Amino acid sequence: MRGVIMYGPGDVRVEQRDDPTLVEPTDAVIRVTLTCICGSDLWPYRGIEKRRGPAPMGHEYVGVVEQVGDAVTALNVGDLVVGSFFASDNTCEICRAGYQSRCVHAVAMGMLGSQAERLRVPLADGTLVTVPGSPTPAQLRSLLAASDVLGTGWFAAVAAEAGPGKTVAVVGDGAVGLLGILAAKRLGAERIIAMSRHADRQALATRFGATEIVEERGDAGAERIKQLTGGLGAHSVIEAVGTQESMMQAIRATRPGGHVGFVGVAHDMQLPGAELFFAEIHLHGGPAPVRRFLPELTDLIMSGAIDPGVVFDLELPLEDAAEGYRAMDERRATKVLLTL
Amino acid sequence: MRGVIMYGPGDVRVEQRDDPTLVEPTDAVIRVTLTCICGSDLWPYRGIEKRRGPAPMGHEYVGVVEQVGDAVTALNVGDLVVGSFFASDNTCEICRAGYQSRCVHAVAMGMLGSQAERLRVPLADGTLVTVPGSPTPAQLRSLLAASDVLGTGWFAAVAAEAGPGKTVAVVGDGAVGLLGILAAKRLGAERIIAMSRHADRQALATRFGATEIVEERGDAGAERIKQLTGGLGAHSVIEAVGTQESMMQAIRATRPGGHVGFVGVAHDMQLPGAELFFAEIHLHGGPAPVRRFLPELTDLIMSGAIDPGVVFDLELPLEDAAEGYRAMDERRATKVLLTL
Repeated sequence: MRGVIMYGPGDVRVEQRDDPTLVEPTDAVIRVTLTCICGSDLWPYRGIEKRRGPAPMGHEYVGVVEQVGDAVTALNVGDLVVGSFFASDNTCEICRAGYQSRCVHAVAMGMLGSQAERLRVPLADGTLVTVPGSPTPAQLRSLLAASDVLGTGWFAAVAAEAGPGKTVAVVGDGAVGLLGILAAKRLGAERIIAMSRHADRQALATRFGATEIVEERGDAGAERIKQLTGGLGAHSVIEAVGTQESMMQAIRATRPGGHVGFVGVAHDMQLPGAELFFAEIHLHGGPAPVRRFLPELTDLIMSGAIDPGVVFDLELPLEDAAEGYRAMDERRATKVLLTL
Repeated sequence: MRGVIMYGPGDVRVEQRDDPTLVEPTDAVIRVTLTCICGSDLWPYRGIEKRRGPAPMGHEYVGVVEQVGDAVTALNVGDLVVGSFFASDNTCEICRAGYQSRCVHAVAMGMLGSQAERLRVPLADGTLVTVPGSPTPAQLRSLLAASDVLGTGWFAAVAAEAGPGKTVAVVGDGAVGLLGILAAKRLGAERIIAMSRHADRQALATRFGATEIVEERGDAGAERIKQLTGGLGAHSVIEAVGTQESMMQAIRATRPGGHVGFVGVAHDMQLPGAELFFAEIHLHGGPAPVRRFLPELTDLIMSGAIDPGVVFDLELPLEDAAEGYRAMDERRATKVLLTL
């Protein structure tokens, strides 16, 4: 089959890879219908995250079940399915508490590489959610968004306790931050302040439910949020970048007793303990347990209530994945869809 | 009046101070009935926290109202009252959300110095809680504990979401950690693991509700908590020390999705962002909003349901405060009560 391999920073190729096969009786193999490139794929692409040797890429996917292992009971060949970037049994104590991304048997799907024609999915019964009905092409794109960026933005909004009466600030205007806005809106937030200085992303933020835009960054950005909230700070802040500056911006924009939901993969970050102590905020985040939200997100998408798929602003065939990486690296695209 | 002044590290004296007077119409002046020395008073005593020049000390107090300003409506001369280490209006948006320690008009009581015969209490209507009935000497000591160490331990247990079905680990066996155990027990925790290597404190931990004792510290301590919880970590961890080691011990002892409530005043602490990200825990803490809990704690004490006052293991007259500081510094006492 054809699949993406990253050889090193800036070096992405589409090559022939071995077709995946069932390894464990709990595995499924799916034919990938849609996949995409993640903001987090740019960390190794830019050489910030070191990798050893060539590696398959991709951890977002919508597909059709082609094979199931003997122990798989909830899936049938032909099912349209969506899953997330960690395979999870969905039965262990951690999964049952809603933290499937930290399942005691979690498998990182990025190691298997969903930017390919086929994908082995471990713990298939726990990992995959069957899509009911026949999605439209737009709904398929939205389901793919649910696989990571929507699910991650949703978790961030939940972790930040966005809800009725709350003012939510969103640090980061990538796909996750934008879909964090959509999530905050769905969760009933009263005001949603998008922090962005790019006109196209500001427009999408507004479409998803942002009520205000703040262009300042860092401490100036945090100060602006305080000005907009009677000097107190936002109740809820979504952090969707993962740098020292963005995290401190989020912490400093939050009122005492408020909540930061952080989902930007942390890089070279050290949080000053004394400042965190006196900030008196709640901090929660990490790799989003997207599986917790997938059934609900699938329903919202299939009922037409949300359209997260509009974050994809460039669509390329899998064979042109290298151009997709370049476009995202150069910020010519927010989120690149790869078709098969 | 007589009052404690700290001149520098290790140099505590009881001297003549000016009697406090009403400054703002919202002030009260109380005659201090009981006060005490706090673990946090040891930071400047040990020279770890730098102070400029001589300063009054103390922020814990039970007392009787002697004077009230014109704007005070909820208190009468003669009322027996307890308050906490931040004066707060109890009406601002932050107070109403339960974060009185970060009240927009907060005043640190430590600046006024409760280790003295009299104390000015700003924002008296918001700050002070009237004690009903006639407390016994033991109840008076418990009310004094509520002023800080009980209220702080209680907040830590609430922040850590201790409750039914939960396993709670407690890092730190000082008065706050020990009363965090009492709080976790009252909140219905199923298992409470005290981390302590001092026999007398282990005994008090057990009396307050600890079901297990762990003597290991740091990573070995965190590892032991994991062993005791099926490899997962505790649901709830109370951090009541404030060092880098104790905070990392708390974070590493917590399961994914679990909660750390941290109340040890952070000193020279830097939290590694990537580890915090992948730990996927909830982190909440800071200066405890004790005022939130004071009415409930007062009721529990006056009804005889809890006896936090037993943490005081040395009782001295105010004049002997210097010996009290030495005893706590040398760990000869857990918590020193000063009588007037």
